[in-house]
Order: sequence, then C-alpha cells, then structure tokens
Amino acid sequence: MRIETLFTPSEITESAVKDKPVVVIDVLRACTTIAFAMSRGCERIIPVASVEAAMNLASSLEKKVTLLGGEREGKRIDGFDLGNSPLEYTSDVVKGKAVVLATTNGTRAISMSQGAKEILVASFVNMVSVVDRAAGLGRDTLTVVCAGECGKFSLEDAVCAGMLIERLGESKEVELNDGAHAARSLYRQNQDSIADLLKQCEHGRYLESLGFAKDLDICSRVDSLSILPVVKEGRIVKPKRAKRK
Amino acid sequence: MRIETLFTPSEITESAVKDKPVVVIDVLRACTTIAFAMSRGCERIIPVASVEAAMNLASSLEKKVTLLGGEREGKRIDGFDLGNSPLEYTSDVVKGKAVVLATTNGTRAISMSQGAKEILVASFVNMVSVVDRAAGLGRDTLTVVCAGECGKFSLEDAVCAGMLIERLGESKEVELNDGAHAARSLYRQNQDSIADLLKQCEHGRYLESLGFAKDLDICSRVDSLSILPVVKEGRIVKPKRAKRK
Repeated sequence: MRIETLFTPSEITESAVKDKPVVVIDVLRACTTIAFAMSRGCERIIPVASVEAAMNLASSLEKKVTLLGGEREGKRIDGFDLGNSPLEYTSDVVKGKAVVLATTNGTRAISMSQGAKEILVASFVNMVSVVDRAAGLGRDTLTVVCAGECGKFSLEDAVCAGMLIERLGESKEVELNDGAHAARSLYRQNQDSIADLLKQCEHGRYLESLGFAKDLDICSRVDSLSILPVVKEGRIVKPKRAKRK
Repeated sequence: MRIETLFTPSEITESAVKDKPVVVIDVLRACTTIAFAMSRGCERIIPVASVEAAMNLASSLEKKVTLLGGEREGKRIDGFDLGNSPLEYTSDVVKGKAVVLATTNGTRAISMSQGAKEILVASFVNMVSVVDRAAGLGRDTLTVVCAGECGKFSLEDAVCAGMLIERLGESKEVELNDGAHAARSLYRQNQDSIADLLKQCEHGRYLESLGFAKDLDICSRVDSLSILPVVKEGRIVKPKRAKRK
C-alpha cells in the first residue's frame, strides 16, 4: 500500500485525492470534536469552509434539530451554539441533532478533499477505527491530509499521521512518500509522550492560553473512542457497522 | 532567537518574510547549484519563476556574458545553455558570467521570499557559511523556507533546515515553531547518513533515474564550499566578506 502524507491542505492536488481514500487529521481539535459528537449521538455533521456558509446553511435547515458549531482563533463564533471543544458536544446537547461546523483548519481540509473515494475523519482518539478501515483498503494509494494550522505545518497532526502509518506498517507492506516517512519518524520520537506533545506544540500552547487545557488532555487519549466518522456527499456520518465501546 | 521553518513556499505569508532574514533551502538542486556557480566565479545569478520570464530577461541582457540555466522535471529546458546540475557550472562555463536561472522549486521559493531583509541561499554544501551569518543576526526571527518539491514537503530540505537549527542551537538559545521542531528532529535522525538520505528521498530517486546519481553525491557534501550567496534586489551575489576555501 502506498501512503502519501500532505502536511497542509495547500499540498492537495486533484490527483492526490480524486477517487482515492483520504484520511483527514486535525487533532486540535476539529477531528477530535467530530469523533466526540458522533459518539455522543450526533446524527450528522456538515463541515463548511466559512462562517457565512455555516449561517446560510443553518438558516435553511430545521431549527429544532440543527446546531451551529465552530471557531475562529480557537474561540466560539459569535451567535453560534457551540465552539470547537469536544467537551461541549455532550449527549444532552447533540443527540439526534445535525451540527453545521465551521472550523479554521479541519473542516477546510475536509472541504478541500472533496472528490475522494471516501474521507475518514481521524485523530488520536479514534485511531483504532481508522487503522481498521484503512488496513482493509487493499492496494489503493491512501492520502493522509493533515489540517495543519492556518496553512502551516502542525506537529501534532504530523505525529498522528505517523501513528496511522506505523500501525498500518505492522500489518502490511507500506511504500511512503517523503511526508509519510517524516511523519512516521516524528511519531516514533513522540510515541511515548503524546499528552506532553499536545501541551508543547504551538497550537496546544495557544489553546491552553485560552483556557482549554482540559481539551488537550481529551485530545491526547489514544483509541479512547471506537467510532469512524466518514464524509459522504459532504456530510459526516457514522458508518453503520462501526464498532462501539 | 526565534526560528520558523516553513516546509513549502505556500506556507509563506507576508509577515513571515517581510523585513526578516530568510534562508531558502533547496538541496536538490537549485541552492546547491547556485553555491557551485558562485564558487566557480559566476558574477551573479538572477532567479526567475518561469521559463518565459527567463527568456524575456535574457534577451534584454548582453548575450556574451549571459547564460540561461534551469530545469523542468529535472531536465535542462530546450534552448537553455545549462540545466540544474552543479557539475555543469564549471569555471570554464560560468566565470565572469551572469546566469538567468529558472528552476521548479528553488528559484520560485526565492521569488516568493521577496520583501525579506535579506535572503540567504542554503544547502548542505555551504551550511557552515549560512550558520556563521545566521548566528550573527541577533534577536531577529529567522524564517527558513524549504523549497519542497512541486508544492509538497521534501525530506532532504527539511533535514537540511534541521541541520541549520541544530547548529544555531549550539551557540545560542533558540525558540522554535512546530516546523522548526520537526526539522531538527528529522535532522537528528538522519545526521549520520546524509548521503543515503539523498539517495532514498523521493526527488533523489527521481534524479537518479534521470542519470544524475553524481549530483546526489555532490549535494550531500556538507560544508564543502565556503560561500554565501545572498539575494539582493532580485539578484544573487556573493557577499564581499564571505570566506573562501
């Protein structure tokens, strides 16, 4: 299996995603938050690239079952129901609901991966489910897109990509592009200190400065959720046969 | 000193380069070739972003002292005097001449760094000179731009950036962004096998397939040239006080 890792959405080309299985990673925090929301009974999440698109879309959906979520600069957007903290997405709040989600990096990376055969939403918390699915993909080239941070490389996403590559390499032969090689190396150097990594990386320190230290802990819990959010026709849903804890 | 490393030119923002010292790295091969050309007596190199720009510019310069150099897909451009192999840039060919140079990644990265306080052209071969200059920069934030490969991360450039960061960290306190952290980690893992790295990375394998195996050897010779090409007003010149071997 060939694995190509892209460290920012700007590395995406049509050939990198078109008709290919794609994994999108945004550890802090969109992809972690999506996994939490789905595991708490959220029906579907509609990722959008802008605040305006979120508000327009939400206004066309049924108010009772639709929530607006998202952040700019890590903070909840004015007028939105929810921010981007996984802790906000409890069963009480999201069960049976649809969430229109606009985040700076993660939902943008998902939007830019449209055209893919399937898009898996990955972070440390649901890594086991992502690896299960990816391992069954056969000979397809797997494209792993790191959301990064405002167009720049982010260490936590690279290390998470490396964890995926390392685990896939345990069960099958993998051929790696330069990005995937680097990601695996970075994972190997950080594999015993994921929680520390999230506290020390740039965006982790920024989130801590905003008061989101608990989120960093939540986001570092490897394999804590057995859930696999997938993007289908622009909507994130939970595959029917996903294992549950 | 704060060091920010960007793995592709698309990570460049105005604030990352404007009035800041910038190091541009393209190990395979533009920055290595530029160092070779300058060390062989080339007067100046004018980096341009496109073949068309190269031809237009060259036609306005004096033919006797102007050469056209560059590549597309690693190969010399039709009608150009030189390709992008450091071995072509001998004293016989380039001494006293100006070269208009169009490469896919390196000269593009230089063009996109315009607005910088100064731009240093770096690769493994002239690392000692780059470190000397960068160490004297005081408290400025240093931006290290990796040229990458066709808009994507390239391992050899990241490791070269990591070497610069590691060496700077030996003489002064350095504060690193995520990219710089990752680059230093990747350097530490590869520091004893630079020549192998160049043979194994994606672009190295591609160049070898084109018959440029010797170039990989040349490009891996750390500190083999004491020369510091700098970009001034769009032209690459050799600083007067650069040490020479």
